[in-house]
Amino acid sequence: MISFESDYTQGAHEKILEQLLKTNMEKLSGYGDDKYCESAKKKIREACGCPEADVHFLVGGTQTNLTVIASMLRSYEGVVAADTGHISTHEAGAIELSGHKVLTLPQHDGKLSPDVLRAYLAGFYADANHDHAVFPGMVYISHPTEYGTLYTKAELEALSATCKEYNIPLYMDGARLGYGLMSSDTDATLVDIARLCDVFYIGGTKVGALCGEAVVFTRNNTPPHFMTVIKQHGALLAKGRLLGIQFDTLFTDGLYFDISRHAIRMADKMRDIFTSRGYEFFINTTTNQIFIILEDSKMKELESSVAFGFWEKKDPTHTVVRFATSWATTKEDIDILEKLL
Amino acid sequence: MISFESDYTQGAHEKILEQLLKTNMEKLSGYGDDKYCESAKKKIREACGCPEADVHFLVGGTQTNLTVIASMLRSYEGVVAADTGHISTHEAGAIELSGHKVLTLPQHDGKLSPDVLRAYLAGFYADANHDHAVFPGMVYISHPTEYGTLYTKAELEALSATCKEYNIPLYMDGARLGYGLMSSDTDATLVDIARLCDVFYIGGTKVGALCGEAVVFTRNNTPPHFMTVIKQHGALLAKGRLLGIQFDTLFTDGLYFDISRHAIRMADKMRDIFTSRGYEFFINTTTNQIFIILEDSKMKELESSVAFGFWEKKDPTHTVVRFATSWATTKEDIDILEKLL
Amino acid sequence: MISFESDYTQGAHEKILEQLLKTNMEKLSGYGDDKYCESAKKKIREACGCPEADVHFLVGGTQTNLTVIASMLRSYEGVVAADTGHISTHEAGAIELSGHKVLTLPQHDGKLSPDVLRAYLAGFYADANHDHAVFPGMVYISHPTEYGTLYTKAELEALSATCKEYNIPLYMDGARLGYGLMSSDTDATLVDIARLCDVFYIGGTKVGALCGEAVVFTRNNTPPHFMTVIKQHGALLAKGRLLGIQFDTLFTDGLYFDISRHAIRMADKMRDIFTSRGYEFFINTTTNQIFIILEDSKMKELESSVAFGFWEKKDPTHTVVRFATSWATTKEDIDILEKLL
Amino acid sequence: MISFESDYTQGAHEKILEQLLKTNMEKLSGYGDDKYCESAKKKIREACGCPEADVHFLVGGTQTNLTVIASMLRSYEGVVAADTGHISTHEAGAIELSGHKVLTLPQHDGKLSPDVLRAYLAGFYADANHDHAVFPGMVYISHPTEYGTLYTKAELEALSATCKEYNIPLYMDGARLGYGLMSSDTDATLVDIARLCDVFYIGGTKVGALCGEAVVFTRNNTPPHFMTVIKQHGALLAKGRLLGIQFDTLFTDGLYFDISRHAIRMADKMRDIFTSRGYEFFINTTTNQIFIILEDSKMKELESSVAFGFWEKKDPTHTVVRFATSWATTKEDIDILEKLL
Repeated sequence: MISFESDYTQGAHEKILEQLLKTNMEKLSGYGDDKYCESAKKKIREACGCPEADVHFLVGGTQTNLTVIASMLRSYEGVVAADTGHISTHEAGAIELSGHKVLTLPQHDGKLSPDVLRAYLAGFYADANHDHAVFPGMVYISHPTEYGTLYTKAELEALSATCKEYNIPLYMDGARLGYGLMSSDTDATLVDIARLCDVFYIGGTKVGALCGEAVVFTRNNTPPHFMTVIKQHGALLAKGRLLGIQFDTLFTDGLYFDISRHAIRMADKMRDIFTSRGYEFFINTTTNQIFIILEDSKMKELESSVAFGFWEKKDPTHTVVRFATSWATTKEDIDILEKLL
Repeated sequence: MISFESDYTQGAHEKILEQLLKTNMEKLSGYGDDKYCESAKKKIREACGCPEADVHFLVGGTQTNLTVIASMLRSYEGVVAADTGHISTHEAGAIELSGHKVLTLPQHDGKLSPDVLRAYLAGFYADANHDHAVFPGMVYISHPTEYGTLYTKAELEALSATCKEYNIPLYMDGARLGYGLMSSDTDATLVDIARLCDVFYIGGTKVGALCGEAVVFTRNNTPPHFMTVIKQHGALLAKGRLLGIQFDTLFTDGLYFDISRHAIRMADKMRDIFTSRGYEFFINTTTNQIFIILEDSKMKELESSVAFGFWEKKDPTHTVVRFATSWATTKEDIDILEKLL
Repeated sequence: MISFESDYTQGAHEKILEQLLKTNMEKLSGYGDDKYCESAKKKIREACGCPEADVHFLVGGTQTNLTVIASMLRSYEGVVAADTGHISTHEAGAIELSGHKVLTLPQHDGKLSPDVLRAYLAGFYADANHDHAVFPGMVYISHPTEYGTLYTKAELEALSATCKEYNIPLYMDGARLGYGLMSSDTDATLVDIARLCDVFYIGGTKVGALCGEAVVFTRNNTPPHFMTVIKQHGALLAKGRLLGIQFDTLFTDGLYFDISRHAIRMADKMRDIFTSRGYEFFINTTTNQIFIILEDSKMKELESSVAFGFWEKKDPTHTVVRFATSWATTKEDIDILEKLL
Repeated sequence: MISFESDYTQGAHEKILEQLLKTNMEKLSGYGDDKYCESAKKKIREACGCPEADVHFLVGGTQTNLTVIASMLRSYEGVVAADTGHISTHEAGAIELSGHKVLTLPQHDGKLSPDVLRAYLAGFYADANHDHAVFPGMVYISHPTEYGTLYTKAELEALSATCKEYNIPLYMDGARLGYGLMSSDTDATLVDIARLCDVFYIGGTKVGALCGEAVVFTRNNTPPHFMTVIKQHGALLAKGRLLGIQFDTLFTDGLYFDISRHAIRMADKMRDIFTSRGYEFFINTTTNQIFIILEDSKMKELESSVAFGFWEKKDPTHTVVRFATSWATTKEDIDILEKLL
């Protein structure tokens, strides 16, 4: 039995565990005020080509989205997102619990199109009654998206320009950012992202860490007393070292990029196998998530020897399923899959 | 210059003002604990044919929606509404500010179709990941809708049955309820509504009162300590008499129904005029709101002698506008309009 | 049976009702965009000696406190108040529902002492762990206080100076402001208050109106999109005229001050009566609220012929009760009380 | 340089790291649906002598407090706590951000006295105006308290009985529960706590884990859809295994109790040293936190060779400081401290 169920089914990259072990008995201050957090922040600033960036570590994705978004919006503002965005669908109303509406726009390939965004913003302010509606106060995108797709540099530039025009921040959810950066078909680098986004996060949980996401404010735009805001959301880890050590390891000698590249190579192989076997793709992706349309009988058959994720019903007799690779996927897993198909 | 801009441009029905004047110097307890509130509640229970109904008075519509909805939802629940519902669009995110998502479904003629609702609820619970999503905890409908349309009794019965099946309350926003009840083309009575809804409100502000909405819980289902909840939302009027006296007057000798019927007669006349002059209706309504598609040049021309509401752009050269009658519309106003068109 | 139960037991001053009647059938825009609101704002700005003041009308006191406070605080900030402040005790947790802590300090005569405030603020920032605590983001005072006492001009100046030093706004709850301004023993004028407070409200509900409070931002410091914020809290009245007309009347020819002065004269007479009869005062006040300590047997006896408010148990055999005068109190009421005592 | 700064300055007990390493490459489902979480829950239920207990794992203390409290309160309810309780002082307003007031009562030795609680609850309901106040909806205690003190079994029984009488849950914050259970001077066992509290949490972060707290609902009283509530607060860990494996290890062969007992032995030795050297204790504790009053000159001197926590200024020339032992404190550290003093 092999598994491609998701990219968070296994623990952490071995170098992370080694480093946790090695530093375990050091006495360090709590709440992120330790040398490993400092070192990790420095390395992230360098990787982003953004010396003035302010970096904070949080534990998980929903927590990060809610803390960042709530801290940057005024009460009368909502966050604009594709209707398939993670905050729109699978975060149990965390954004609304914090008092803010998710203003959903139609997605294209899981993405928020610059044209759709521009038309929406122009329309909002053109409406004479907009004072009775929720103001767009921020734009949320995920990269890769929930559908495994990627924004091009040109798309990010267009989104960023529109946000600037309307004076609202552009926020990128990078839960799987590593896989997006190392995709075989992308022109948007981490430096581009740091330049074009006002704030984004570099996902750790799904890219080799036990837990942890690194939030990057790129323009001296950290909300005041952000540490207190993190605390207030129950998101401040007492043993901040756990996050610092993990990100310090991931950003030492390019580990984050190497393990992401590995996942992409495994995914590319998998895509080749599906293609050569004549499987139908639900959507074309170049990252670590592959969406396949299976006949239900075929799905049942496969389930006995390989684990994958249910995505959605396509029609009464077909289902969309997801195969995900990760930093931990092995060549052997892929070979077994090849034989199975 | 005549005006059909909205149904809240004039003060209150003269009988309300008379009664306010007459009772003005009586010394009454505050916060709704007075004989006029008691009397009004009794009359409303009778009009609803619902002796066990619990009635509360609030000041305005958004306030009522937010207080009722927030008091009936658990934190992980949202309220289902048509995407054109007032809470979805024009309440400035009041529901989200209270922590809850508005779960929007596509509208049909401004209404939430029982079929669409049923399919959504079935789909929600069929989704294996629904524990990561916002639970549907309540259904919101407006009657008349924001587009002036009405639910039939059969539609209300179907919605009610679906809500019962899923054990979630059905809530009706009756900001313009009087106009809905007195429409020339409806089979849903106030007694039907009280029987089919778990909670609804009878709008005063748009139907002859200075302010005030009467919330009716129909099944011994008032949330605990609802008075404290009202207070907590800043919605408890110190001089509760202001609401009690108004609703007591409106529900004495059928005044609420009489003045609503008058508005409908005026609207029917207006509809005849538009029809006979060949104007195009944006949507067919039988209540006090009439939506007309005007060429922009014609709209400009009319604006100099009659006030109406901008609704939305139809296309580059046409606009949808709204003409509303009310309890205060006069035969003379209609005659002048007729001459103008 | 006479009543001194509270200052909100009767309707509105007759001039207000006259004006409501007179303007009733005028067609006016909704949501406060009408000429009466404009006129009232102008008159209030003049009365405050503050041409740049921005005035908004809300319906009730708790609503006003919560809307103003929530709109001026950041998420990590709380509002500082005396532990007897209305927001600390009798608003059902409205401030906390909006996400903010009320940071209570010990009261003196119902007031927040400038020394106590200064010591608290200095101590807060001196605490090395204050990043884990709620930041003081605003200071709330009521004038008159819940105990009927008043701040001197010197006290207001000291509070204002401290707030400026710490860069946090000073907010005055003026639910009974008229009675405070017309007290026989005060040196703080409305102009002083407008000069020393960043924001305050002029109470209408308890000073002759059916409902309504006028919020005054004194320093071009209105929170952005405040109308939307009001709407979002369910506090935007559709028929804004109801508030505009009332405040326009109250601020025409000094009516607000005249009726307040009347209430104070009645209270002064009442104080003389209590004093001459040897009653014990719970606290010395010079406004329209008088707190008397009664033996429980005496209290029972009085209750049969006069209504007053229960305040608190003093000891097992004594109770503190409140007698309140208002704009509507008559000389006859006072005479009857004199005979009773 | 030695450190007794806090009990969260070092990583995790070596057995936890070993187990994380050993299980690292196993493929497990996310969000706590894995065999290690199951096993840990089973062991915790057994240790609590409470087969029907429902156990959930969260990441940190503030997060746990806010998620549990918000999920169990209705909107009009607050949580009662000692004024020195962690939620009252050092959680940055997390409870208020969730919409609820912390109703503080005076502490005795850092504890909430059953008499004080009973008097407060009786007084609340005796107040005729309590409908305008925040209802007490839950009682929060910490054990050990923030001052290192412990409740006796009799005190817990009295608190529990009072809570039952008023039908509100008793919640215990057990951030340092292990140290409380292993104190040399306590009669309250884990089984007692599970019997007397409606819900409590077993602290991991401060007792040998990298992170993690185990919430125990003891009476089939888990709030509905609690997993979704956890998610909604951003508190659901994708790799739930991280928490499951840690608690499974801590509750295997009594490790949690053994390492807690060790910390207490170290603290007892430290107390003996302070006593024999004539140091003044700020408060008598029998757990792992020791509060000493130091002359400021002495404090400065000590700081060069030993790290400890600042607690509060006692008077202009004296300071209260905290020395904490933990699962990781060594005999050598204590010996060095002895020489230093």
